[in-house]
Amino acid sequence: MSVTDTPVRLPIPPLPRGFRMGAVHAGIKRNATREDVTLIASDQPATAAGVYTTNLVFAAPVALDRERTPGRGFRGVVINSGNANACTGSRGLDDAREMAALAGRELGVAGDEILVLSTGIIGEFMPMAKLAAGIKAAAAALGDDDTAALTAARGMMTTDTRPKMAGGIFTADGSTSTVFGMAKGAAMIGPKLATMLGVVITDAAIYPADAQRLLSEAVEETFNCVSVDGHMSTNDTVLFLANGAVGGGPLHGAGLEACGRVLHDVCESLAREMADDGEGATHVMRIEVTGATSRDAARQIARTIADSPLVKTAVHGADPNWGRIVSAAGYAGVVFDPSTAMLRLNGALLFQHGAPVAFDADVVSASIKDNRETLIELSVGDGPGRIRFHSSDLTAEYVHLNADYHT
Amino acid sequence: MSVTDTPVRLPIPPLPRGFRMGAVHAGIKRNATREDVTLIASDQPATAAGVYTTNLVFAAPVALDRERTPGRGFRGVVINSGNANACTGSRGLDDAREMAALAGRELGVAGDEILVLSTGIIGEFMPMAKLAAGIKAAAAALGDDDTAALTAARGMMTTDTRPKMAGGIFTADGSTSTVFGMAKGAAMIGPKLATMLGVVITDAAIYPADAQRLLSEAVEETFNCVSVDGHMSTNDTVLFLANGAVGGGPLHGAGLEACGRVLHDVCESLAREMADDGEGATHVMRIEVTGATSRDAARQIARTIADSPLVKTAVHGADPNWGRIVSAAGYAGVVFDPSTAMLRLNGALLFQHGAPVAFDADVVSASIKDNRETLIELSVGDGPGRIRFHSSDLTAEYVHLNADYHT
Repeated sequence: MSVTDTPVRLPIPPLPRGFRMGAVHAGIKRNATREDVTLIASDQPATAAGVYTTNLVFAAPVALDRERTPGRGFRGVVINSGNANACTGSRGLDDAREMAALAGRELGVAGDEILVLSTGIIGEFMPMAKLAAGIKAAAAALGDDDTAALTAARGMMTTDTRPKMAGGIFTADGSTSTVFGMAKGAAMIGPKLATMLGVVITDAAIYPADAQRLLSEAVEETFNCVSVDGHMSTNDTVLFLANGAVGGGPLHGAGLEACGRVLHDVCESLAREMADDGEGATHVMRIEVTGATSRDAARQIARTIADSPLVKTAVHGADPNWGRIVSAAGYAGVVFDPSTAMLRLNGALLFQHGAPVAFDADVVSASIKDNRETLIELSVGDGPGRIRFHSSDLTAEYVHLNADYHT
Repeated sequence: MSVTDTPVRLPIPPLPRGFRMGAVHAGIKRNATREDVTLIASDQPATAAGVYTTNLVFAAPVALDRERTPGRGFRGVVINSGNANACTGSRGLDDAREMAALAGRELGVAGDEILVLSTGIIGEFMPMAKLAAGIKAAAAALGDDDTAALTAARGMMTTDTRPKMAGGIFTADGSTSTVFGMAKGAAMIGPKLATMLGVVITDAAIYPADAQRLLSEAVEETFNCVSVDGHMSTNDTVLFLANGAVGGGPLHGAGLEACGRVLHDVCESLAREMADDGEGATHVMRIEVTGATSRDAARQIARTIADSPLVKTAVHGADPNWGRIVSAAGYAGVVFDPSTAMLRLNGALLFQHGAPVAFDADVVSASIKDNRETLIELSVGDGPGRIRFHSSDLTAEYVHLNADYHT
């Protein structure tokens, strides 16, 4: 058995075989003419897995999809932006089911073969007439070319400034499979799963339980390692669909692991894109924590640094203010010995053995100012726990966007 | 035994007997001519208690005071702003001890009879020559009038826009005692103890263990219930000194509890002042959570709401965006049933039984805009846990202050 895995980064990655997409503007978004209804169709039944928000207050489509995945026999995903269908009670759940049924009708399949994603304003009922017309139009627009992928990704967007896509391929048992992912999210990017929607599709065949394991593992190190504002949403969802259009039996062994690596890379690329596109962001922060007692401990430290408004504003101001970083680590709720900690900012050593290190502040400040990415490397001991975490800086523009935009 | 307790609010509350204060500008703060060294002297030995940051990375004066309190025989407190003496290793600890010794020398007492507080930039060594001159000058300026109290409170300030003081009196066993408190803090106001310094003094006599209990209880419901940016500092400290100058034996029974109530009120007033003076704040948020399973659960929900940048910006924008509040409660990590939750914003019912309630958004928005305080009342069930929490909104001015100010 020969296995290779080669992540591919293209402006618009190719779609896996047997999938088509389409998106239209249905008028659900306010003051916008952008696409707001996206339909994804699989020509043959697909396995699906999902990872969802852990918020106690979760939206109707989350309730629906969580019940249906992992499983097999899925023929499509219907997505709308502009309305989250959250805090809408039993009517909201009925609307989500109807949304699946409408999509199923257009695709000639049953409503329970469809998964549903929504994002947008909380607490308003879904405008079902507009949605129905939008789903009909999206079905008529289904395609498998660049335009189809691009408009589908745009149809998920709320305050995102750009669509987010990533792709990769891997070869297993002589067949080359394609993985395509798209995501949205620029705020309400939260402490656990980012506040986001993501859909990853592949033409490989995968058993439901395997799809769920691969997705859960990938999400743990990617979408769960990104934060814009620390606010967890009611709608966070990542779906993974595998339709087997490449032919052959379900992946196993090395082929399955190759698929997992590409899935991980696609998710990481999308997660980083979300931090980079964080509302008002002028910098993306890459936080590498090493030497913690466990991966969870490392992530907790990284997240506390990522969510500190003082760290975020320091990066925005190109201020090599390591005291804010070290003190954030200190209140993460994870035990470590500060006297063994070591901090580098964009490669420059700033803190070691519990005390500051002499450094040229102007040089480090200039390196922050001149680069889109700020690299924070914190070692907190000699434990095995390490994590990579992405976040964005905090700017006045974030405040303007969120004081004036009614989500 | 007759007991009364009457909280008093004055622009500048009177000092308890036997305490004097003074403050001078010693040049520790950058670009400022404001007072930066404060000295508090007790004419007779005082009991002292303290509550400190739980940050693993804590400043030298925290290490010093934590070792010394609770205890008796204290004759003064020396405070500087402009330099936190944090992340300064063993030299920092030597400097903190020397700071106490310098103050003791001026007051004619031993260095270990002095407590030390510092706030300001992290990771720079204390300018000891300037500090020594400042302590000498502050000792020469000691007084017990309004000017002494005002300058002393100003000497603690960093980015605070105004000094924070509160006072009260209580009568026990025929003697009337005075309680005076002052505090600083406008950012790095954090998830546990606020990032702050506070000193409360009284002329009552109190045993060290009682002083510690009263202070810990008061802090739990006041300074531990305030948040500006969720960032816990390395220097958080609240001290409580009782010198017994009123005469008579240590408080007990009802007298002690009366003292505790006034202490609580003084701390709550100072805590609210800190939120109100939060960097760049245009609103103070009062969050009342009721019906939780415990006080800690209620506080965790309140803090999660208070720290959400989306809630903070919504309040800034006078946007009655209850979805952000309810979803923040949902990810607080505390179990409750959203279908029993009820939310009021400035008195208006917005959410009940898991679904939105029709309300006049313009009226609620206007009430946010027209009032300095925004009241968020969230009931999450019928449990006994309740808390009052204070926070501030998030504004572009906060970002400007923290992107450009090197703490």
